Amino acid sequence: MNAETFKQNFTADDSTDKESLDNVLSIIEDVKQNKDDALKKYTAQFDGQKIEDFKVPAEKLKNSFDNLSIDEQNSLILIKERIANYQQSIKYKDFEDGEFSYVYHPLERIGIYIPGGTALYPSSVLMTAVPATAAGVGNIVAVTPTFTEDNITFAALYLAGVTEVYTVGGAQAIAALAYGTESIKKVDKIVGPGNKYVALAKKQVFGDVGIDMIAGPSEILLYVDESADYTAVAYDIFAQAEHDVNARTFLLADNQEVIEGIQSEVDRLISSQVRADVIRESLKNNHYQIADTREALIDVINFIAPEHVSIQHADEQNISRKIRYAGAVFIGKYSPEAIGDYAAGPSHVLPTNQTGRFSHGLNVNDFLTSHAVINLKEGTYNNIAEAAKTIAQKEGLDAHYESLNIRTER
Amino acid sequence: MNAETFKQNFTADDSTDKESLDNVLSIIEDVKQNKDDALKKYTAQFDGQKIEDFKVPAEKLKNSFDNLSIDEQNSLILIKERIANYQQSIKYKDFEDGEFSYVYHPLERIGIYIPGGTALYPSSVLMTAVPATAAGVGNIVAVTPTFTEDNITFAALYLAGVTEVYTVGGAQAIAALAYGTESIKKVDKIVGPGNKYVALAKKQVFGDVGIDMIAGPSEILLYVDESADYTAVAYDIFAQAEHDVNARTFLLADNQEVIEGIQSEVDRLISSQVRADVIRESLKNNHYQIADTREALIDVINFIAPEHVSIQHADEQNISRKIRYAGAVFIGKYSPEAIGDYAAGPSHVLPTNQTGRFSHGLNVNDFLTSHAVINLKEGTYNNIAEAAKTIAQKEGLDAHYESLNIRTER
Repeated sequence: MNAETFKQNFTADDSTDKESLDNVLSIIEDVKQNKDDALKKYTAQFDGQKIEDFKVPAEKLKNSFDNLSIDEQNSLILIKERIANYQQSIKYKDFEDGEFSYVYHPLERIGIYIPGGTALYPSSVLMTAVPATAAGVGNIVAVTPTFTEDNITFAALYLAGVTEVYTVGGAQAIAALAYGTESIKKVDKIVGPGNKYVALAKKQVFGDVGIDMIAGPSEILLYVDESADYTAVAYDIFAQAEHDVNARTFLLADNQEVIEGIQSEVDRLISSQVRADVIRESLKNNHYQIADTREALIDVINFIAPEHVSIQHADEQNISRKIRYAGAVFIGKYSPEAIGDYAAGPSHVLPTNQTGRFSHGLNVNDFLTSHAVINLKEGTYNNIAEAAKTIAQKEGLDAHYESLNIRTER
Repeated sequence: MNAETFKQNFTADDSTDKESLDNVLSIIEDVKQNKDDALKKYTAQFDGQKIEDFKVPAEKLKNSFDNLSIDEQNSLILIKERIANYQQSIKYKDFEDGEFSYVYHPLERIGIYIPGGTALYPSSVLMTAVPATAAGVGNIVAVTPTFTEDNITFAALYLAGVTEVYTVGGAQAIAALAYGTESIKKVDKIVGPGNKYVALAKKQVFGDVGIDMIAGPSEILLYVDESADYTAVAYDIFAQAEHDVNARTFLLADNQEVIEGIQSEVDRLISSQVRADVIRESLKNNHYQIADTREALIDVINFIAPEHVSIQHADEQNISRKIRYAGAVFIGKYSPEAIGDYAAGPSHVLPTNQTGRFSHGLNVNDFLTSHAVINLKEGTYNNIAEAAKTIAQKEGLDAHYESLNIRTER
């Protein structure tokens, strides 16, 4: 299809599920009131586990790491270092300009949500915990449901230096982090992806604590031309589609021939994929092919603000410079999106569902907070106080006027 | 009282008002479904106004400015320039480091909520709109209920260059900005303070659009010693307390004598204040006096993370350096908080109710979004691809593995 047809038919998901929201609100209230007792109740009810002590013993975290192969250990160590170096390089620094300074401080205590179930994503642990340690956050807590045995998620937490890990999940875990219980102390901010209930709970506790974002299904947009390796591009599409049947893939090209060339590779290779069923279902419902002019395609990119944009195109630098809204942009054959998922450096926790239009991927600076320090000289004060007094009077704030006036009088 | 007693008795407001939330959710759904018709219905119901066309004519904005006195016009102009200059000085710049860059772009379209009623706060208009224009936002929309005649709020909007102004308020205005109606086009982010319903609505639309923060009652914490001008400090307390009976004031000192000295000035001057009734009510319920050691007081400050901290103390620089969490810090006699409300430069839209522990005052950078651009060389790719492949396999993401592997093979 062309860009216009696409834009007319594509809508972001902005529906509200009132029943789920009410359930989440009542879980949050219950945890506020009954604390650990509520956590135990919901963990039995939703995760089928009877847990007396939510805290994972230190030796279980250490054993999880020690039991990995040397190759796996070294891979995690290399990834951790790449992330830490990149995050340090983009960390904000204090700014000083005479009468004004603007200063940054790490958050005191943060919570990381790690999804449970059967999937193990040690990369997500490193992509959230390492930016937090790069910021200098003193206390990092992780919550994750259902894990009882040693596993690579625990190994990644151990490597990242996270010592406070609790086996509790869902909306109840978010409430515990936001308001505290007997065993889990309140945090200042909660980050990390989760299921629908986790996302709803994060939204409801926002304001009482900070949160990173509301995560939706993963997305990639590929902008390619004849110079691209069509087989590699087909694998890039599979790599996105294998996440989830709701994962979205967008293939953009300057002409229909390129799209057809890649489609042939997709058709040729799809049956041999391990997760072929998920990929087929995802491509059937959530794959978009758009051929149009450069200008129209750039407009589509900025409209979608895709979580990942991969440009494999002879003119890739110029295309990249036109992109205003995206989670992250990957340029060239040697920056496939999959390398960003693991080892490039920037966090793979990125905005989806058009939210890249107003938010950014998780990074070290999301674990800092900042404030202005204002230290005016008498001369500066006198230059501006009259204007302030005039507007204070107009606003009817008389004590503001007096507070300003007494300092010009004396 | 001392610091320990204070901390044991002070709690942030984290209550949930389920009935108000349900009302807000149904208003949002109604506006999503019925758009302008719903806006008209709620404007009649809540604001008692029958409005056919919500848009304020350009000449009404211009006339509002033209009708101000020269003194008022010049005061607004000076304030606008101070804000613009400060915001430019702290604006983030693109970062480039070989294979990585990190780039910033202004948001495309933002909405500013301006409270209505009897109060007119042109300073709040400038403190939200000017940081947005400093960021380079192309389209700024303002919504505000109840104003029909020329007024200084419209004048400030005119001066700030905001041409799209709609007379609609409450949760219905937030829903219109978030999802769009026939007459109001959807925005990417909503900023600005409002009443309880506005705050609840902002929280519910968060994720579909960006929001700045959930605002609570205003606060000041003053840390003073014998070197302070007690009369000026008394006026600083009045200036906070006159906002609202819920406004909070904290007076900290190294000893009880200083607190008593200031209390005498408060007692002497309170009756002569224009807004004495509001001030008395506010001080009765929401004024805290704490004398303790330096260390304990600093701990209290970081615990409260007050919206405003004013330090009028012989050792003010050292005290300021110990503050990690605050909305803004004002140092010395010539930086009263009231000058920050109008003309110092940093925005007066600041975090309250302990949210300064994880969030910051509105500034130019909140109107930018950002993303990483990743452009790896073949050599770098080969150095890290094996680690990525190892973890991809461990995570069971086979197409990720293939997408990585094909680029090491060729």
